[in-house]
Amino acid sequence: MSEVADVLYVNARLATLADGYGIVEDGAVAVRDGRIVWTGPRAGAPQAAAIHDCDGLWLTPGLVDCHTHIVYAGNRSDEWEARLNGASYEDIARAGGGIMSTVHATRAASEDDLLRASLPRIRALLAEGVTTLEIKSGYGLDLDSEAKMLHVARRIGELLPVTVHTTFLGAHALPPEYAGRPDAYVEMLCTDMLPALAAQGLVDAVDAFCERIGFTHDQTARMFDAARRLGLPVKLHAEQLSDQRGAALVARYGGLSADHLEWLSPEGVAAMAQAGTVAVLLPGAYYFLRETRMPPLAALREAGVPLAVATDCNPGTSPMTSLLLAMNMACTMWRLTPLEALRGVTVNAARALGRTDIGTLAPGMRADFVLWDIARPADLAYAIGANPCRGVVQAGAWRDRLS
Amino acid sequence: MSEVADVLYVNARLATLADGYGIVEDGAVAVRDGRIVWTGPRAGAPQAAAIHDCDGLWLTPGLVDCHTHIVYAGNRSDEWEARLNGASYEDIARAGGGIMSTVHATRAASEDDLLRASLPRIRALLAEGVTTLEIKSGYGLDLDSEAKMLHVARRIGELLPVTVHTTFLGAHALPPEYAGRPDAYVEMLCTDMLPALAAQGLVDAVDAFCERIGFTHDQTARMFDAARRLGLPVKLHAEQLSDQRGAALVARYGGLSADHLEWLSPEGVAAMAQAGTVAVLLPGAYYFLRETRMPPLAALREAGVPLAVATDCNPGTSPMTSLLLAMNMACTMWRLTPLEALRGVTVNAARALGRTDIGTLAPGMRADFVLWDIARPADLAYAIGANPCRGVVQAGAWRDRLS
Ligand SMILES: [Zn+2]
Ligand SMILES: [Zn+2]
Repeated sequence: MSEVADVLYVNARLATLADGYGIVEDGAVAVRDGRIVWTGPRAGAPQAAAIHDCDGLWLTPGLVDCHTHIVYAGNRSDEWEARLNGASYEDIARAGGGIMSTVHATRAASEDDLLRASLPRIRALLAEGVTTLEIKSGYGLDLDSEAKMLHVARRIGELLPVTVHTTFLGAHALPPEYAGRPDAYVEMLCTDMLPALAAQGLVDAVDAFCERIGFTHDQTARMFDAARRLGLPVKLHAEQLSDQRGAALVARYGGLSADHLEWLSPEGVAAMAQAGTVAVLLPGAYYFLRETRMPPLAALREAGVPLAVATDCNPGTSPMTSLLLAMNMACTMWRLTPLEALRGVTVNAARALGRTDIGTLAPGMRADFVLWDIARPADLAYAIGANPCRGVVQAGAWRDRLS
Repeated sequence: MSEVADVLYVNARLATLADGYGIVEDGAVAVRDGRIVWTGPRAGAPQAAAIHDCDGLWLTPGLVDCHTHIVYAGNRSDEWEARLNGASYEDIARAGGGIMSTVHATRAASEDDLLRASLPRIRALLAEGVTTLEIKSGYGLDLDSEAKMLHVARRIGELLPVTVHTTFLGAHALPPEYAGRPDAYVEMLCTDMLPALAAQGLVDAVDAFCERIGFTHDQTARMFDAARRLGLPVKLHAEQLSDQRGAALVARYGGLSADHLEWLSPEGVAAMAQAGTVAVLLPGAYYFLRETRMPPLAALREAGVPLAVATDCNPGTSPMTSLLLAMNMACTMWRLTPLEALRGVTVNAARALGRTDIGTLAPGMRADFVLWDIARPADLAYAIGANPCRGVVQAGAWRDRLS
């Protein structure tokens, strides 16, 4: 490296995630023009215009939350409380609860209100070192409301130091206007809504909820065909509550990820492995819904499927705004190792978003990284409810931890 | 009320917890000399020297974490990681792991080091609106080390805006010096260590770990006899892993609380109800240990036993520093209602500490309360990993939320 770096971060303990934890004691990271240009033991570090002393803190890649529904209006604590007080699902549906209550609130909110409602959740993630975030649509279910959600997602990426990936999830639920006509709704999504939103540059990927209570295998395939025509990558809510052969379907389309996967079959595992599709594990929903069937982790490991971990932040099934806690749940409930959990929110989560320039610390990667006041990397998954983040660098720019 | 209040908090939505949630819309709280002198709808509020506008935020009593082992040195993420990587309990014990590794680290730490190691955990609790905190000894297991732990606990109450209750838990584990001689150890605790620590004013209550892997029913009774001679209240780790008739024992001594209780018998429930002993529920340990047997909640409710909820913060079985998350776990895993969970960290947690002057908002109570940016009180238990605390008043003094 001939040129002088902008900043050299020294006196850090690195977990580069490049190979296992990739630990470098007394490490340094050199940054130029928002990119990492060098990492290694301090002794070999290049010259830099400025030095930042990391006080011996641990330094990891910025965290990536690769599956969220974090933009929405209202919340569903009222129906959650009603259920805990003995109301049945029928009572709640009759009172206008369930996902449609979020759809109604999101449709009714102005773009500014929707942004304002979402910001505290986003800030909670960022306070824990999240530097890249996926945000799905899917509470609008009509063109204007889906566009509004995706606009808000884009604005979040402009207002706050976080890279936002948008995902179109029009096939999340059937809106009341299309009651009894799911095929007509999917047809409209494929021929009208998705092309219109994609033309506005609002869609980075396409997702669907493939489930008995969502959309069928065939309807999902039509969505993926529409995405392919537009050159958009796909991902899928697959095998959460039943085996719909969704993972194999998304793998057939070269999908980025299949997410949830509690009911994933051996055939689904094999198809994902062959296609290089990432398994995105969402322990928050499993926890909140008190599920008991775990994703087939041994088979996924055996097949070499990359494992990511995300919050699934959403008001109905995972009102969770802590990616560190998702790591803990993955380890505690599903016996991921702390290293698997950390890879799951860095290198493998990046891969679930189709990104190869984030998720590890190495020359050429974007300078997204986090300083942590911890004894060892396993602490990130071990502690429950702590936030040891002490600062974040995003695209080379330092920010103190958000409060 | 004839005198003028010091401060009148207005434009708040009160959950006084005095009767159910005790909701007062557009409520006000008047404070004088660190005590609440009036609460109610703003229209009837008394005169005050100063007005604090709460911006329509919710206002609840300060939270009370009534069961923690939060003062310790070291942590056990290394052995947790080793277990997740396949090490057996025997491997870990052979490598010096388990509770004894915390005892060794705590004994080796200076008082200042022990304080420094504990402060981030304490601050995490306080950031969520905890204004009263119980701290147990039990990682020293010799006179000097137990005294050191309790001194640190007292210093925390001096350094930070939190009221600390200390609990002597010498009967937590058998120290290596007494291997094979548990009765001699208990005798030493009763006749030497406890009286010495009590004489220094370091002990507010006495606890024990009554369990097959801890101390027997009879040894526990001897501890309680010693406490009674000193006029100290008792509580007990009871029925966590097996039924040792611990709840009935602590009830017989008029104990403040019996804690854990997954294996509580109907006889234990009845004894607690009769004695007014609080059931302290510790969902963090149940979660972290992947237990499957729930405390007998229906029977406890039926008998009218007050339910409290606490973090059990400790490095081995509940490395949890979020009381809000403990509330969520109690609701999610054990189906407490959000109101029960909120009562569990306010009025009933206060009772588990023998306090009648905190835990609700009412004239005469200490002015410990929290402002929350939430839509309704249920949000405190519903959200996973959020911290909606916007400010805390402790003994009448305002503090911004800790970061
Ligand atoms: Zn989802
Ligand atoms: Zn305990």
